[in-house]
Amino acid sequence: MTVPPPVAKPGSATIATIADEVGVSVTTVSKVLNGRTDVAPETRARVEESLERHRYRRRASRQAATSQQIDLVFHEFDTAWAIEIIKGVEAVTAGAKVDIVLSQLGGAHSPSQQWLDTVYGRRPLGVLLVLCHLAPAQQRQLQRQRIPFVVVDTDSATSAMVPTVGSNNWNGGLLAARHLLELGHRRIAVISGPEDVLCSRARVAGFRSAHDEAGVQVDPELVRFGNFAAYSGNDHGLELLRRPDRPTAIFAGSDIQAMGVMRAARQLGLDVPRDLSVVGYDNLPMATWIGPALTTVNQPLRDMAGTATRMLLDLARGEELATSRIDLVTELIVRESTAPWRPGSGPASSSSGKAVVERTD
Amino acid sequence: MTVPPPVAKPGSATIATIADEVGVSVTTVSKVLNGRTDVAPETRARVEESLERHRYRRRASRQAATSQQIDLVFHEFDTAWAIEIIKGVEAVTAGAKVDIVLSQLGGAHSPSQQWLDTVYGRRPLGVLLVLCHLAPAQQRQLQRQRIPFVVVDTDSATSAMVPTVGSNNWNGGLLAARHLLELGHRRIAVISGPEDVLCSRARVAGFRSAHDEAGVQVDPELVRFGNFAAYSGNDHGLELLRRPDRPTAIFAGSDIQAMGVMRAARQLGLDVPRDLSVVGYDNLPMATWIGPALTTVNQPLRDMAGTATRMLLDLARGEELATSRIDLVTELIVRESTAPWRPGSGPASSSSGKAVVERTD
Repeated sequence: MTVPPPVAKPGSATIATIADEVGVSVTTVSKVLNGRTDVAPETRARVEESLERHRYRRRASRQAATSQQIDLVFHEFDTAWAIEIIKGVEAVTAGAKVDIVLSQLGGAHSPSQQWLDTVYGRRPLGVLLVLCHLAPAQQRQLQRQRIPFVVVDTDSATSAMVPTVGSNNWNGGLLAARHLLELGHRRIAVISGPEDVLCSRARVAGFRSAHDEAGVQVDPELVRFGNFAAYSGNDHGLELLRRPDRPTAIFAGSDIQAMGVMRAARQLGLDVPRDLSVVGYDNLPMATWIGPALTTVNQPLRDMAGTATRMLLDLARGEELATSRIDLVTELIVRESTAPWRPGSGPASSSSGKAVVERTD
Repeated sequence: MTVPPPVAKPGSATIATIADEVGVSVTTVSKVLNGRTDVAPETRARVEESLERHRYRRRASRQAATSQQIDLVFHEFDTAWAIEIIKGVEAVTAGAKVDIVLSQLGGAHSPSQQWLDTVYGRRPLGVLLVLCHLAPAQQRQLQRQRIPFVVVDTDSATSAMVPTVGSNNWNGGLLAARHLLELGHRRIAVISGPEDVLCSRARVAGFRSAHDEAGVQVDPELVRFGNFAAYSGNDHGLELLRRPDRPTAIFAGSDIQAMGVMRAARQLGLDVPRDLSVVGYDNLPMATWIGPALTTVNQPLRDMAGTATRMLLDLARGEELATSRIDLVTELIVRESTAPWRPGSGPASSSSGKAVVERTD
């Protein structure tokens, strides 16, 4: 293989330069840029390599041709959580007369090349990614295409260059644990989201910091990573609450997961909040309606989504962002599912065997 | 005003015919067809009138130019209900490599002309309307544009010509009331959705039919129309349960609304199901997780959405539908929120004044 020629001036290459260098037609380079699939994989890889080395970027004049759409892509559609995000995005796009193209990655953490190719074909104003991230090479691809992107509630540590809107998860974990410690609880469990998702780890770190502040040791057995679904809360909840030294309080990874924890308590004949305090996360509208109404950490999902959408539309207009990383404030909302620790509710009396198993379906 | 010339053969007019007749350029007629806004309203109205009188239709050859997108439009994004619909649509579109453009009408029952104009500009494969409907003139507009449409869970009686997927709401109401009557309840309330929405009335009709079957009279005071939100269930629930002759069972318009009813019961110190049986509607995933787990009518939302999407894609390919109106089956799912009527739980003992008001936020 020959050594590729040095790059004269990054960003100055035209499609013709790339075509010349790779030894293909201008049409072929265009096809690669437009996400067309009728290019041999080997050719495509060579074109991509050259585009990347030259830091090729579409000329700004091409931007006029873009549609009035943004892509909103979820790691996975999920419960009422996703609706809050969609509502936040829509509140901004409706006013800007921009349409939302909705998709999900079916649980994958990064979009596939195929998905990106359809995006290049459509040329949206921008891409909004929720709870997923772009691999560095994918980021560069989108930059070459001059398609801006913003990440909402990233699932991983992204470079400071990636515009990101999140919320202060560490603070959320801190507030939840402080509240329970102030109520006198000393054996507090946490069931977070997946361990490989950044926000899960940040919340657990905040939870630990509150314990450190209070001089209370965290029992490693009471720190769990699950997922944000109700069954995960139920599974971990049953396991935790069946322990002879069961926790007197559980901090859940989501409101939905907290519903699974509360169901576990009912299944074991434990009353929330008398025998067990439960704190959720998100503050979905339903948190006020379940019984007992859920004490939870408010994550301003609609605001996060709205802020990210405004950033994306600013970028699409060619504006510079004042700041590329915004974390909105989390706060604790105290309702009915938490109560002071009381003697007798703790682990000492929990092994009395008077647990009643509710009928389940 | 002159009398417009008679139409030679419906559907045979070309853009040139229309332009000639109205006395405008072909470009102007094109602009109206493409939803462009740079046409004077008066001119536009005349063009529309002529298009409609000639029953103008785009030539099929234009269809090749359409995008690989469908429009999914909700009356309003709402809770986890909308996510079930979105999941059902996405399961079909993902396989067909079709994108979803998502919008909502902000509570309006029919799309605005402005919304339709953006659709004409984009030329999607088709339009899927959820819990809303197209006015007859709008239906004809879309037909002229050769953009097919399908309605999911229509909010009004549509002509048999409009492809519609729903579920058997009458049967749902019948099953819920039969279940409660079989449990021995005699004072059963129903809180349905809005009275002007077809499915609400169908469910109440089914509820009445079950009473007729059983020879039990429906107290008109116990038949309520609200909306599908939790607060509506809470408001009507509190009002019903504070009556001296309070119902011993309530059939709610949605699972979300049922959560509001159950909260009303808790606020008044009534236990579900001991003092009050509650039946929901929809069978959202959360119905299994709330306490007590909700007895509810399963409305196969994902299947409904998937079936409607397949119909729409068939129409977009120019296929004829075997049937234009499909109602999927509803069924009762019995969980924990319903129990046999027991002496003492009824109205006679309910005015004892021992109601306790829970603290609320």
